[in-house]
Amino acid sequence: MGGGVVKHLLRNHDLIAERTGLDLQIKRVAEPQVSRVPAALSAVVTDDWRQLVADDEVRVVIELMGGRTLALEVARAALAAGKPLVTANKALLAHAGEELFALADRQRTGIYFEASVGGGIPIIKALREGLVANHIASIHGIINGTCNYILTRMADEGKAYAEILAEAKRLGYAEADESLDVDGIDTAHKAAILASLAYGFWVKMDDIHVEGIRTISALDISYARKLGYAIKLLAIIKPDENNAAQVRVHPALIPAGSVLASVSGVYNAVAVDGDVVGQTLYYGRGAGADATASAVLGDVVEAAAGLGVNHSSRFTGHDLYGKVAKIDQVVTRYYVRLSVLDQPGVLAQVAAIFGRHDIGISSVYQPEEHAGETVPLLMVLDQAREANFQDAYREIQRLAVVREPCQAIRVEDIS
Amino acid sequence: MGGGVVKHLLRNHDLIAERTGLDLQIKRVAEPQVSRVPAALSAVVTDDWRQLVADDEVRVVIELMGGRTLALEVARAALAAGKPLVTANKALLAHAGEELFALADRQRTGIYFEASVGGGIPIIKALREGLVANHIASIHGIINGTCNYILTRMADEGKAYAEILAEAKRLGYAEADESLDVDGIDTAHKAAILASLAYGFWVKMDDIHVEGIRTISALDISYARKLGYAIKLLAIIKPDENNAAQVRVHPALIPAGSVLASVSGVYNAVAVDGDVVGQTLYYGRGAGADATASAVLGDVVEAAAGLGVNHSSRFTGHDLYGKVAKIDQVVTRYYVRLSVLDQPGVLAQVAAIFGRHDIGISSVYQPEEHAGETVPLLMVLDQAREANFQDAYREIQRLAVVREPCQAIRVEDIS
Repeated sequence: MGGGVVKHLLRNHDLIAERTGLDLQIKRVAEPQVSRVPAALSAVVTDDWRQLVADDEVRVVIELMGGRTLALEVARAALAAGKPLVTANKALLAHAGEELFALADRQRTGIYFEASVGGGIPIIKALREGLVANHIASIHGIINGTCNYILTRMADEGKAYAEILAEAKRLGYAEADESLDVDGIDTAHKAAILASLAYGFWVKMDDIHVEGIRTISALDISYARKLGYAIKLLAIIKPDENNAAQVRVHPALIPAGSVLASVSGVYNAVAVDGDVVGQTLYYGRGAGADATASAVLGDVVEAAAGLGVNHSSRFTGHDLYGKVAKIDQVVTRYYVRLSVLDQPGVLAQVAAIFGRHDIGISSVYQPEEHAGETVPLLMVLDQAREANFQDAYREIQRLAVVREPCQAIRVEDIS
Repeated sequence: MGGGVVKHLLRNHDLIAERTGLDLQIKRVAEPQVSRVPAALSAVVTDDWRQLVADDEVRVVIELMGGRTLALEVARAALAAGKPLVTANKALLAHAGEELFALADRQRTGIYFEASVGGGIPIIKALREGLVANHIASIHGIINGTCNYILTRMADEGKAYAEILAEAKRLGYAEADESLDVDGIDTAHKAAILASLAYGFWVKMDDIHVEGIRTISALDISYARKLGYAIKLLAIIKPDENNAAQVRVHPALIPAGSVLASVSGVYNAVAVDGDVVGQTLYYGRGAGADATASAVLGDVVEAAAGLGVNHSSRFTGHDLYGKVAKIDQVVTRYYVRLSVLDQPGVLAQVAAIFGRHDIGISSVYQPEEHAGETVPLLMVLDQAREANFQDAYREIQRLAVVREPCQAIRVEDIS
């Protein structure tokens, strides 16, 4: 990622200077393995990041190392020295943002983190500045390129998760250890940042309900399509009816005709619904050294242009909700796929349980397919509280006529 | 539009204050017909805009009257008084932007115009700030809600342009005089602003090639769909191979699977391709008092927060191209629909003319339909220079076997 920033800063230095009047120079590069740094930078490279932060000529510090240990030390040191910090590190901000923004405020400097969510998409700027006059009614984000790549290829080719994952690793679209991406943790880091911006209080990682995409099958993607839906891993952020903020990450069925459903491959998109502006959406490459460099350099320009000017992190002070809703209390719709014995009365038994839990069934679909002795039974349910749905779903799975595998995926009715 | 800004400023005043520390107050409202202003504002209303501009307590001037005569006077007076100007007036900026930005620079104040393009979508901010490190490789915009509404309904319902236009007027989606919208002029105003931002020199309205949607038929929309395309009115901005900027507004076939093709109804979207970030896209309501108010209020916050701070219009100084390409020199692909006599050898005659002009044919489609003695013949051509295509097209229309009506619409191969 550092390589991308250096490459594009050198290449577009004159353009940036002409547009902004700023003459951006790389004064220092800190890298433990100095041999990894291109020869052109050999005069400025150091293996000691403290030298970089302490250098008076370094006016803006860019942290692109990732991780949460050394990065936190660097961030603290830069801010403590009164230098603005540009970072793409979502894990760092999701876990230590509260501390770091408070420190920046005390030091009257700023943290710039456009690259932390959505790669090159200026979504942080849109939320903080463009939509500053809006109460945020909802955010729905496809903000992990690896997951969207896998789900898109599963949808296009009908292949299994494991097969596509293996190919994604071979092609460099997934890390050797894929868990941060496919288990939804990376998406949750970004959701924490978006939610904190939207609602003005720091959302803790532990308060975010997170599910990944490992259990999604090509079969469910294909059934969902027949029912008029696509399956995407979403970050969902919106207030509930008790003025708590819902912040959840999970796969969801979304209408096939929605703009979000047309977001394919490694692309990211964030749909933001504001009470003044209505629905808006921001789309682009969510990862990669180049896209990220665009956001980092935009931040560097802003940090450099703002040197000596008063700062406001705009992160605090509009504590709209102040608490995160428990997943049990969330009200959503569900898509349910059951494997049931092919005999009369099964639908009646299932429907009776949902009925007893006061959960309406909005559509039923039974394709003419068999898997051994069972047939698939698909349902899309009406809105129900999570705890209520889970009770009913457990009861249904205990029915003698219901066998493994079963699957339940939430439905989000976005436009 | 003024009503929307007032409504949302009053409603979300506290939110804005909590987020930014700014206490925004409406000090004066100028309106020739003071009776049109809500009673809540009667204490501050005046029918003399000069009073408003001269009032020391008015620190930011918002111009929402539209038009280019009185609005220009107001804009000049506000800037001359050193007050930042917030405006949604694309016609004003497209025609008088160069003068006004020069005046703002001299007065060390700013012009804020997020609401002038794309309604509530923060596209100006994205271009100027988020993508500041990017050479702009291309912009493709659906930036007129009326045209997109009409084309979407024509596509969905197969009805004629005139019928949908009449309904759009009845429903308030089109003005009584529709020409500014359907002839592409409003789109061209916005294109001039986007192009000027992207390429750093003022693009003149006279240099923009503009075609509207009056000649688009439901038939062509339906044929285009069969060929895998949607028809949209686009603003297209990109450099050509001679380092001139193409700035053109016309209907175009775009791939049905592209994100832009999924933009329907009154929604707007702008796809921006940057050399660092790759493809990005911004989507939302492009018009209406509410969406526009979101952008105006975002600008008011920025103008108010920037009071006393140095300004840079960022409009000048990176004169990348400095000239606009003539439409004759533009290279595009074309979709052509001919009405031809149903007899052997017709395709050969047509193909021979394209061949003589060195224009390849990428696909041919002849549906099994008759209209009187003629049958439709559809072709999608390879890339050709406009002047060359027009020569060939005129020659083909003169063939004895080719009758009226014929249609030619450009194809844009966006992803």
